[in-house]
Amino acid sequence: MNPTSALTRGLRQIGMVEATEQPSIIGALRDIAPDLATMTIAFVYGDIYSRPALDLRQRQFVTVAALAAMGGLEPQLRFHVAGALNVGCTPAEIVELMTHLVVYAGFPAAVNGILVTKDVFGERGVAPGAVATQTQTPGNRYDRGLACLRAIDGAVGERVIESLNGIAPDLGRFVIEFAFGEIYTRAGLDLVSRELVTVAALAALGTATPQLKVHMHGFLNVGGTTEQLVETVIQIAAYAGFPRAINAALAAKDVTNERMSGGH
Amino acid sequence: MNPTSALTRGLRQIGMVEATEQPSIIGALRDIAPDLATMTIAFVYGDIYSRPALDLRQRQFVTVAALAAMGGLEPQLRFHVAGALNVGCTPAEIVELMTHLVVYAGFPAAVNGILVTKDVFGERGVAPGAVATQTQTPGNRYDRGLACLRAIDGAVGERVIESLNGIAPDLGRFVIEFAFGEIYTRAGLDLVSRELVTVAALAALGTATPQLKVHMHGFLNVGGTTEQLVETVIQIAAYAGFPRAINAALAAKDVTNERMSGGH
Amino acid sequence: MNPTSALTRGLRQIGMVEATEQPSIIGALRDIAPDLATMTIAFVYGDIYSRPALDLRQRQFVTVAALAAMGGLEPQLRFHVAGALNVGCTPAEIVELMTHLVVYAGFPAAVNGILVTKDVFGERGVAPGAVATQTQTPGNRYDRGLACLRAIDGAVGERVIESLNGIAPDLGRFVIEFAFGEIYTRAGLDLVSRELVTVAALAALGTATPQLKVHMHGFLNVGGTTEQLVETVIQIAAYAGFPRAINAALAAKDVTNERMSGGH
Repeated sequence: MNPTSALTRGLRQIGMVEATEQPSIIGALRDIAPDLATMTIAFVYGDIYSRPALDLRQRQFVTVAALAAMGGLEPQLRFHVAGALNVGCTPAEIVELMTHLVVYAGFPAAVNGILVTKDVFGERGVAPGAVATQTQTPGNRYDRGLACLRAIDGAVGERVIESLNGIAPDLGRFVIEFAFGEIYTRAGLDLVSRELVTVAALAALGTATPQLKVHMHGFLNVGGTTEQLVETVIQIAAYAGFPRAINAALAAKDVTNERMSGGH
Repeated sequence: MNPTSALTRGLRQIGMVEATEQPSIIGALRDIAPDLATMTIAFVYGDIYSRPALDLRQRQFVTVAALAAMGGLEPQLRFHVAGALNVGCTPAEIVELMTHLVVYAGFPAAVNGILVTKDVFGERGVAPGAVATQTQTPGNRYDRGLACLRAIDGAVGERVIESLNGIAPDLGRFVIEFAFGEIYTRAGLDLVSRELVTVAALAALGTATPQLKVHMHGFLNVGGTTEQLVETVIQIAAYAGFPRAINAALAAKDVTNERMSGGH
Repeated sequence: MNPTSALTRGLRQIGMVEATEQPSIIGALRDIAPDLATMTIAFVYGDIYSRPALDLRQRQFVTVAALAAMGGLEPQLRFHVAGALNVGCTPAEIVELMTHLVVYAGFPAAVNGILVTKDVFGERGVAPGAVATQTQTPGNRYDRGLACLRAIDGAVGERVIESLNGIAPDLGRFVIEFAFGEIYTRAGLDLVSRELVTVAALAALGTATPQLKVHMHGFLNVGGTTEQLVETVIQIAAYAGFPRAINAALAAKDVTNERMSGGH
């Protein structure tokens, strides 16, 4: 784990994400903060990106979701949407990821993420892919959403809906009809990736620990592993700072303890 | 509540906000994520905006406050400041709303909101209105602020000030002198709208639940209704995501329970 | 404390920060919200900046750290990086401050802060200074980091690392190796300033109260005073709003109580 090898490993990883042997961050920071460029490569790419448990496609999902959810980080989002394409994420998956974020970061963040994506796709001559438009059977939105909520979040998710009774039952209905009935049931991004993206966005925002825990359970329920969950949290340290990563790690600890104690 | 009628309702609502029959979001997202445009219209405008309890003016206050407080969402803020004018908010009210946000989101967010407002007013040939400059009697800032704090937040607000004794009494004094003595007592935006805007901003930021509860009490104390409070929270789901909306709804539940139990 | 004298005091303070007798905010807001310009000068600079306990250099550290950590506030960040130079912060300190923020706000926020800094330095013909590049002995990163963590945060800091055992021990290792072993041990910014900046960033973000308390302890451990801590929190009211300042003040109250009760 010495810095030299971290730098070497990092150059290889950032090289794959940026599809270059000359990472642009070196030139951008050369005259002002060259050490920050070195740290980015050695720590973010050498120490974090090169770890197992998450492959490069999954790491790009995590990073893109975190950056789009936090907002205001367009240069990095542009870099990482391109990076997602470079490591094999499909255009349709990226569009779906942004669409998925309406639920967790709101429509403005999702729309801004899509507009950055549109620019990147334009520069690369990439088409958004066939699943950009999907028609859902309108009739049974509620039933479809409730089944999906139950399958993903189980009892923990239903408890959230119940907690809204007596104050905002329509908000609970919208969670079922819209978040689960319309968004989660779309094609283009598999369920494990949807929960990966959800955990990444909520951990990066740092403002909704109860929901972060619900979706950590959800991630594990649909086939994600504890190791992947922890890796996601570690990667958040690079994009939203260590405090939010530490808090997300402690949430993950609670979640795994709940599952071991059978309380879930 | 089928999607077709949600879309029809939504087109009518967004048409009023944007003052057009051709919502620009359809063109902006056509080649990249047409479903996200459809969802925006059907869910945000068809399912949420078309609900009763808040009129379009109030909904624009909520949206503009949430967007300006979160920051970094200038395209949407520009759209919704124009939308606020389109549905009848006065220029003076919009300027006051931004000025009010210095208290809850800080001066930078408020100044950036004002600069977007200035651009929109410029494009529309709108004058900011006569209340942009107000002279307050300087002498009794503290007394005026304390009376205002008591009238709005009651014992809950005084408890916040008291909690600062022993660590930062001057911060408590600034809350009274500046937030209440200078901002809340200004003309141009009535008290119910000020508390509506405060609740919207704090719910969207998601970082200060205790103050969110204080101002939910405040909103109800100055004449807002529980139904309006809940609608505000539901609308936040569209602009800051469901998790922050759910947490705000649970805060509203606590507040209404406290009021029913007479603990307030 | 009457507004007229606050305005006079404020004009003097903002004059030093902007290095002008004609603050640009007056012109920028003249036609839209002149009162917001007056408030900025009278309240932010007259009431807050002119208080003792923190000097102008420290206030600029606090403001720059808060703005860079929150992100999306580039116009203000640009103003205050220039202001930091105007009041005597060295270019090397500003670069180190931004580099330090990778730990608390993530790499994207730090890189964006550096790029704004680069622009400002370019306009001013300022060189970033000799400490921009530092070579650390790579071998003993962990030991160096652990010693540094112990010296700064004491038992409170070690408890954070221990809490990650059983879920994400590598995240704890990265805190030691990277945050403390690589960042805190760099030259260019003294330890008290690093903890000042950390407290400012975490208070402004408002998303990590446990870490905020750890670093309030750290600030006091390395020689900061309670009075300075409280002033930092008060200044956050101007840049992130009163609710986050109040919550940070209550965290400071807990920290000082813990230290008086010997529980620390």
